[in-house]
Amino acid sequence: MERHGVESSSSLCRREESVIKCNLPKAAFLTYSVPYMVSGVSGKSRDRRHSLFGSSSVGKPTNLSRRSFLGQEIDSAQDFVGCKVNYEGSRRTRKTPMVTKIEMVETAAKPVTQTGNRLADLCIDSIRFLAIDAVENAKSGHPGMPMGMAPAAYVLFENFLKFNPKNPFWVNRDRFVLSNGHGSMLLYALLYLCGYDSVTLEDIKKFRHIHSRTPGHPENIETAGVEVTTGPLGQGIANAVGLAAAEAHLAAVYNRPGHDLIDHYTYVFMGDGCVMEGISNEACSLAGHLKLGKLIAIYDDNSISIDGKTDVAFTEDVGKRYEALGWHVVTVENGNFDLQAIFDAIQKAKQVHDKPSLIRLKTTIGYGSPNKANTGEVHGAALGAEEVKLTRESLSWPFKEFEVPEEALRHYRRHIETGQRIEREWQAKWEAYKKAFPELAAQFERTVLNKKLPDNWESALISAAEKGGDMATRQASQAMLNALAPMMPELVGGSADLAPSCLTMMKNVPSFQHNCREGRYFHYGVREHAMGAISNGLYHHNTGLRPFAATFFIFTDYMRASIRLSALSRAAVIYIMTHDSVALGEDGPTHQPIEHLASFRAMPNVYMLRPADVTETAAAYIAALKSTSTPSILALSRQKLPKLKNSSVEGCLKGAYILSDNTGSGGTPDFILTASGSEVHVVENAAEKLRQEGKSIRVVSFPCWELFEQQSREYQESVFPPNVGKELRLVCEAGSSFGWERYVGHMVTIDQFGVSGKGDDILKHFGITVENVLKQVKAVL
Amino acid sequence: MERHGVESSSSLCRREESVIKCNLPKAAFLTYSVPYMVSGVSGKSRDRRHSLFGSSSVGKPTNLSRRSFLGQEIDSAQDFVGCKVNYEGSRRTRKTPMVTKIEMVETAAKPVTQTGNRLADLCIDSIRFLAIDAVENAKSGHPGMPMGMAPAAYVLFENFLKFNPKNPFWVNRDRFVLSNGHGSMLLYALLYLCGYDSVTLEDIKKFRHIHSRTPGHPENIETAGVEVTTGPLGQGIANAVGLAAAEAHLAAVYNRPGHDLIDHYTYVFMGDGCVMEGISNEACSLAGHLKLGKLIAIYDDNSISIDGKTDVAFTEDVGKRYEALGWHVVTVENGNFDLQAIFDAIQKAKQVHDKPSLIRLKTTIGYGSPNKANTGEVHGAALGAEEVKLTRESLSWPFKEFEVPEEALRHYRRHIETGQRIEREWQAKWEAYKKAFPELAAQFERTVLNKKLPDNWESALISAAEKGGDMATRQASQAMLNALAPMMPELVGGSADLAPSCLTMMKNVPSFQHNCREGRYFHYGVREHAMGAISNGLYHHNTGLRPFAATFFIFTDYMRASIRLSALSRAAVIYIMTHDSVALGEDGPTHQPIEHLASFRAMPNVYMLRPADVTETAAAYIAALKSTSTPSILALSRQKLPKLKNSSVEGCLKGAYILSDNTGSGGTPDFILTASGSEVHVVENAAEKLRQEGKSIRVVSFPCWELFEQQSREYQESVFPPNVGKELRLVCEAGSSFGWERYVGHMVTIDQFGVSGKGDDILKHFGITVENVLKQVKAVL
Repeated sequence: MERHGVESSSSLCRREESVIKCNLPKAAFLTYSVPYMVSGVSGKSRDRRHSLFGSSSVGKPTNLSRRSFLGQEIDSAQDFVGCKVNYEGSRRTRKTPMVTKIEMVETAAKPVTQTGNRLADLCIDSIRFLAIDAVENAKSGHPGMPMGMAPAAYVLFENFLKFNPKNPFWVNRDRFVLSNGHGSMLLYALLYLCGYDSVTLEDIKKFRHIHSRTPGHPENIETAGVEVTTGPLGQGIANAVGLAAAEAHLAAVYNRPGHDLIDHYTYVFMGDGCVMEGISNEACSLAGHLKLGKLIAIYDDNSISIDGKTDVAFTEDVGKRYEALGWHVVTVENGNFDLQAIFDAIQKAKQVHDKPSLIRLKTTIGYGSPNKANTGEVHGAALGAEEVKLTRESLSWPFKEFEVPEEALRHYRRHIETGQRIEREWQAKWEAYKKAFPELAAQFERTVLNKKLPDNWESALISAAEKGGDMATRQASQAMLNALAPMMPELVGGSADLAPSCLTMMKNVPSFQHNCREGRYFHYGVREHAMGAISNGLYHHNTGLRPFAATFFIFTDYMRASIRLSALSRAAVIYIMTHDSVALGEDGPTHQPIEHLASFRAMPNVYMLRPADVTETAAAYIAALKSTSTPSILALSRQKLPKLKNSSVEGCLKGAYILSDNTGSGGTPDFILTASGSEVHVVENAAEKLRQEGKSIRVVSFPCWELFEQQSREYQESVFPPNVGKELRLVCEAGSSFGWERYVGHMVTIDQFGVSGKGDDILKHFGITVENVLKQVKAVL
Repeated sequence: MERHGVESSSSLCRREESVIKCNLPKAAFLTYSVPYMVSGVSGKSRDRRHSLFGSSSVGKPTNLSRRSFLGQEIDSAQDFVGCKVNYEGSRRTRKTPMVTKIEMVETAAKPVTQTGNRLADLCIDSIRFLAIDAVENAKSGHPGMPMGMAPAAYVLFENFLKFNPKNPFWVNRDRFVLSNGHGSMLLYALLYLCGYDSVTLEDIKKFRHIHSRTPGHPENIETAGVEVTTGPLGQGIANAVGLAAAEAHLAAVYNRPGHDLIDHYTYVFMGDGCVMEGISNEACSLAGHLKLGKLIAIYDDNSISIDGKTDVAFTEDVGKRYEALGWHVVTVENGNFDLQAIFDAIQKAKQVHDKPSLIRLKTTIGYGSPNKANTGEVHGAALGAEEVKLTRESLSWPFKEFEVPEEALRHYRRHIETGQRIEREWQAKWEAYKKAFPELAAQFERTVLNKKLPDNWESALISAAEKGGDMATRQASQAMLNALAPMMPELVGGSADLAPSCLTMMKNVPSFQHNCREGRYFHYGVREHAMGAISNGLYHHNTGLRPFAATFFIFTDYMRASIRLSALSRAAVIYIMTHDSVALGEDGPTHQPIEHLASFRAMPNVYMLRPADVTETAAAYIAALKSTSTPSILALSRQKLPKLKNSSVEGCLKGAYILSDNTGSGGTPDFILTASGSEVHVVENAAEKLRQEGKSIRVVSFPCWELFEQQSREYQESVFPPNVGKELRLVCEAGSSFGWERYVGHMVTIDQFGVSGKGDDILKHFGITVENVLKQVKAVL
């Protein structure tokens, strides 16, 4: 039976015939496995890897150790395949291991000049050693990626990236996204070297320390110059699709011949993890469809991930996949040395205007570390003092910890001057533009520069609500979008292939397509996760765009990681989530949210809004648009809801408010009924019946916990008076009871999965009815 | 400027020169757009489509109406491109629309024989009309997919699928997964036609009615013959990867020459939505890597999704992508008629053993409906009485509602006999196997057939716990896995590229690879979402496999939809989720769970377990393995935790229990401190100090809400006595306070995002300390 990577046994012991030769600066690794028999199943251990030039304590194959080979010449690694080796393994599994593979991997060794250009080497190794030293100092972090990607980063920042270190927010800068965010030290090193004020050498020394500006993964909210918050893999590349789409859209809307206000590239670094994650395929498929030619991703194809060699799980043809997605793909075979090839690849990518570009850059993770390069070990842990020393030797780096050679620093710091110059040039363009196109310039100034909403946007929403009657809140939402669309060119967004259900199409708003860049309706396809991350990118383009994203509420499960990043990175995206309860009916439990309201109420920095009617829907939009640092989720009904007599925009903006009360001024209600969204009219009807029976009943509409909890204690207690205790309060909500003990003692809720059937039948089945509310209240009163 | 799909204006008005000709049974659609100017931006409306032979009310281009063309001959649709048409649009945007495209689409019209084989036609149309009538009767559902995919379903069930309708759980059946689960009526129709007891004609008449066995989307828990619960797109194809992996693994473990106990295919139907979702790319990339040759997916390439034509969002080359993923890809150009080509494609796919197969089947959604075929309209709504009538005419179907021609039913029902025969043949094989391989047969019987855990599995865990000391609970988890691995060959699983962090590798357990099918460690790569769905597939293979899946707790956000489907479909998957709080440290807020415990406590049918030490970790594994219908999530610490003196397996299995109490028998504690996981030792230490000050303090370890809430009220009140009110209870948990009001009145919790830093510094920063607990308690006592 063929075995993974094992040659036929006839090739055993050919070692005797081989000539031993090693061409530095390569390192050699041998891979071997150990046969065993366990529980009646025989097999081989997973492949073990061992550096021929390194040191290793356990499982070291002694006759292929450092001592045997160092200084000798290995002609061809293949000569050793099939060799038996002695093995100092655990006794239990001691069998004769067999060498299955020897790989030759490029790393550094003394003396080596990578590029023939001393300054370039100094600049590149400055990045590497800042990363190495910072991780070593923190005793935590990911040195491998910065060590491998430093050459590409150098080429990009040296020759291509347009930025102004003294104004990280300059509107027409190129965007750089580190999608493999664990390599954060690469970015911090560059920000420091290029002269950003946000990262000093002191900050780098505090890498991963609490309250530093250099957290473990890059966070836009902590460090100016970091465009988006990355770390959770695949998010960054999807954010970048949003950044590139924002650029394309704004360029189409504002640029005029000879007046290119918006004209920049979006560059992304990403690793194997980003490429494996489903979100990146979703986002990159859409980017290909949209022909976002100014999006350039550099894929660190280093064949190593945390589990070791990526070939244990990941053997697809990435280049071919990206071609299938409509991307321009080019491979750089030697990302460790070949600066010219990196330069050429980026240059070529910039010239391909009708496709995004993927540059497959073959690198050695942890390049420069004699023993850990090209292993999983260097991915996510400090090298250790000894290996840091060896790496300094290997890369001929005479400088001390955190020391950057003067020459390199001076070279990087010229970006301060050039950055200021290019921003000045842009300012001149902008002045000319203002004169030539005063009307568009005014819009640009309001939206892109000042991020100010248009006059009367609130009254437009309120007026739309006044015109509205009984309707599903998803329909009310469409009325709001249509009220805003003509006055807010910065309103952009769409749905994940549910436009006719989520009701997100806007009148006379064309779709954003490769041949209609001025369009601002996004057909995301069935790609919820990418939709969320692209919305974050649109927001963090930081040019006033106000993205919305729509699907069924249940499918927040597909995009939860992106929604959490909206909250964490303070992207005030508007999530329009329709079909918000079991009342959606026949689609059944796979489509019926239960725990979703609770799960977002528990998430920090999210407005989880569930409006009860068209009026509260207007208020939900007002809350969402007023927010500039908190995303909003609007949970909206599929089914028609009555327009409530007393619903109020002002009340809704406070999160919870008294909708009705027959208690009389100064009195104490007998009971408080509360509800959100589609259950508000249920408790209102129940209250009416109880009032007819002589009870004094207060109804509280409770659309948003987070807003309510921002109110003064005085206001909160005016709504839920302490003298009407929880035992005299009941909530009715077509979702999980979880969390409601904070406000009430009785719950008419659903703590199990839904069922398929007509919406009304289902509500009855779960007791979300006036009758059941009455029954529960009467059991108390 | 080039516009989407618009030819140059020089081609305007070429209509006069054209010959009008229409080749039935094709339908023609014209696409046109309307120029407009809004908010200073000029553009064109999104493309509008209009059937030339249908009826349409709004926006009907009058001079290209049904009347103008019906019965005339259209030679080439292209002749009309660029024609100006009159337009009855809204006044506001009235401009001259322009025809941009005319498509000719195959649909049916009278008289048409699709296949030249009357019986085949009857069988195929029986599926179609059961679907049409059931959706019409429910006034809800998705007729388009069953109408388009009926021919492929017929060919598959007629010629290939190995199953026994009278025993849907026969172990060696082929698995059929409807990944585009909205087309559930296709599956229900087949189950009824083939003679499954689970779906009768009455059940079909109750399609989408409450309490029926035919819910809106297929649910394995409702309907025997449904292998997995689908509907949320992309899940089914990923489940299928798990099903195919289960087959490959069990075949390698049990089959012996001449004794093939396990030998079946896994077939999947999936649509554009499944193909767009990121999860399917993750799963299919892994399937290609694993060379799962017995996985055959038929992709309904009908170019229509809910937003209309898929080309608004989805223009990638799917075939090429799947080739890049390592799949065998074949296209069937005419999935509506060409039964032979469908047959050949499946036959060929079965012969490709080293690659999974994708059959791109070009079909017409809603095939047979003269006006709605090939439109988004037919995707997710009933056709309407008039169109049902026209479809009956178009497909020459003389039968009444829900009437299946006797000849077709008889033909389908022969599967009852053949199914029973092939199961009998398998039984004979099994008898022979038992004699030839008694030891393996015993294991097969215990695990695959009886799904019984081995003797002494619990004591193995308890003994491992006894051996364990102070350790991170992720390390304790590894000890449990290693205790189980030798005795439980049915334990399969792995992590999403975090093996060295989640500590999920097991001693002497090789990795499941294409050349090591007996391996049972899964290297999932960085593909959390697929990992969850594949685990569901492994479980629902229903052959006793007990899958586990591991990543960081935060990344449940990436796989939440799959975890929810574990809960809904009752797959007792074990989710090993390490790095469970801010105490993970330097990786920072992108990696630190806050709301996650709450979010899963709110989800129905999930054991959210957070053990406090090695003993409770053993108990968590016991709870997880005892469960056969509830998935378990184990939230485990990165950091070392002390082994608690009084922690108890028995207590932990009750969800919450008294860990320590100095009150004395019959007395009432002054205060109750509770916590889960890594905070239990914090409250235990705080309690000790309070006791030294003379207080009587109870400490409750609270690892699992769901288990606790299954206990008797008596037990619950013995732990949290009503006479020690919430105002005398405090929880300390390094996560959101959300929900804790159910049990306590005071919380030492974290209701904001985390920070990057050393774990201890972070805990101090958020007050998750003995000191702060003491301070809060003393403020009360």
